[in-house]
Amino acid sequence: MPELRRDTIIGRWVIIAKERGQRPYDFVIEKDKTKGGFCPLCPGNEHTTPPEVLAYGRPHYSPNGPGWTLRVVPNKFPALVIEGDLNKRGEGIYDKMNGIGAHEVIIDTPRHDETIPTMSHEQLIQTFWAYRDRILDLAQDSRFRYIIIFKNFGRAAGASLEHSHSQLIALPIVPHRIQEEIQSSLHYYEFKERCIFCDIIRQEKSQDIRIVCENKNFITICPFAPRSPFEMWLMPKEHQSSYVSMDDNQFHLLTDLFLETMQRLNKALPEVPYNYMLHTAPLLSPFLQHYHWHIEIMPKVTTIAGFEWSTGFYINPTPPEESAQFLKEITLE
Amino acid sequence: MPELRRDTIIGRWVIIAKERGQRPYDFVIEKDKTKGGFCPLCPGNEHTTPPEVLAYGRPHYSPNGPGWTLRVVPNKFPALVIEGDLNKRGEGIYDKMNGIGAHEVIIDTPRHDETIPTMSHEQLIQTFWAYRDRILDLAQDSRFRYIIIFKNFGRAAGASLEHSHSQLIALPIVPHRIQEEIQSSLHYYEFKERCIFCDIIRQEKSQDIRIVCENKNFITICPFAPRSPFEMWLMPKEHQSSYVSMDDNQFHLLTDLFLETMQRLNKALPEVPYNYMLHTAPLLSPFLQHYHWHIEIMPKVTTIAGFEWSTGFYINPTPPEESAQFLKEITLE
Repeated sequence: MPELRRDTIIGRWVIIAKERGQRPYDFVIEKDKTKGGFCPLCPGNEHTTPPEVLAYGRPHYSPNGPGWTLRVVPNKFPALVIEGDLNKRGEGIYDKMNGIGAHEVIIDTPRHDETIPTMSHEQLIQTFWAYRDRILDLAQDSRFRYIIIFKNFGRAAGASLEHSHSQLIALPIVPHRIQEEIQSSLHYYEFKERCIFCDIIRQEKSQDIRIVCENKNFITICPFAPRSPFEMWLMPKEHQSSYVSMDDNQFHLLTDLFLETMQRLNKALPEVPYNYMLHTAPLLSPFLQHYHWHIEIMPKVTTIAGFEWSTGFYINPTPPEESAQFLKEITLE
Repeated sequence: MPELRRDTIIGRWVIIAKERGQRPYDFVIEKDKTKGGFCPLCPGNEHTTPPEVLAYGRPHYSPNGPGWTLRVVPNKFPALVIEGDLNKRGEGIYDKMNGIGAHEVIIDTPRHDETIPTMSHEQLIQTFWAYRDRILDLAQDSRFRYIIIFKNFGRAAGASLEHSHSQLIALPIVPHRIQEEIQSSLHYYEFKERCIFCDIIRQEKSQDIRIVCENKNFITICPFAPRSPFEMWLMPKEHQSSYVSMDDNQFHLLTDLFLETMQRLNKALPEVPYNYMLHTAPLLSPFLQHYHWHIEIMPKVTTIAGFEWSTGFYINPTPPEESAQFLKEITLE
């Protein structure tokens, strides 16, 4: 059983997932598994993944068969397991609980060689629908407090499979970084009676020096204090704390702007590895006046990450105004 | 002039160091500069670095000449600059100040091919002396609040030069991660009247399942909730909040235990890339009952770091009890 352990000093929880099977000597040589060879995410290989929990696009009911346009399956090597009790307990001054949760893989497309910037609107919107549908389903499990959704693209960003996919982790705790955001934005709200993200959007609109692109409902900016070159935040323009509150029209507009954002990035830095992560309100408090859902996109362009990762202190050689201008001026077909 | 900018939501400061010269198109191709070629840190090439600020081991006074056993020079491509005013100011809801600070390179050894685990006690202790001497000197500058000292070893951990060196960054703010540690440990102290690090050491001694090695004054453990396999913390056993409070004898014992720790790591994972960072009390409050200086050592063995770096959420496949046992059982010559 994996374990969730709390860093007793700063309160960060980590998953100790020894079932993932790496022993100390396994780390000596790392292999590149992303290129070539058998792909368990491709159509025809459905039997090699755990049974699907969601699929779109099949004309007839035939779970785990071909014909799908998007498919969600449990991770074959999950960091957390779905069955069992949390059994929260101490070990002296330390705190831990069983590693209960869900770890799923959203297979964005049946096409092995398709990446987000080359997807159609019709394909990509299914990924965003799947995020909502899985959150709504897993939110019914009273053990869960937060659902992290993210994508690793490229080996340098942590992808272990080449075929385009996102990942979902349902957790019995709210991650440290999200807690920080929520607490800090609450503090701001108590002081100002305004959402800090709404204030950021207002200022970005008026300064107009860090906007990458926007449409009626959404805006992509390079944030004022980015951790890395080309970091971007995509946010709804009107206050909305939970991703699952979006209506049909918003899903279309989100898809449009996300596609444009990723096409600009890909044209600036072809096939650059990246991570993105959905930041949304916790499951037990979806409607917050002070919090605003958004997607953080982090291209992995510098290798100084090692130090920054371990210290939380960032040195960024590119001002966000330059990143934004560069991305904004790109001509898309 | 570089800028320090505050993330307006969670309060993290970042350095925007555009003088380091990378423009957007520079990121497309990354080159490996760590192997081969001219080395500006080697003896004989002293004229290619900025003039030294400290050197040990020269029999006669001849700054920037050869004969040294350790040398400290300003970084040729500094993230911060030493001359100027902070000029703290707002930009609407955002906060920034000039990127004033020091950025120095500690050349640990004159020998290009020497790494920490192959160093003699006499060589390595000079690195620890240099950390102290530079902190004491820079602490006299009233603009500074914190001095970060760290080492990147190996390209995957962010090293851009092969020759063994540490780096020092003097900052006009206390980094977010250190602030968190200090605030959380203060909270614990207010509750318990005990230092949380001292309590951790007591518990580790009594459990004896995460200790890697120890001597009279120092202990190295794998922490209870590590971010990565083989993460280690080296701590003084007796309460001490500031690195610069060590006496002569402690410097020797620190050198002994650090050497043993790094030899164990290197034997477990030969030449594994790593970062280490010194966590010590802020310059303006060196004597704290609730804070305890230590060195955090983070080997870079997994590539899933991309996601974890961007979210602050960690999945670690190796329990610290296994890492510690593996490191402890290694036979050193």
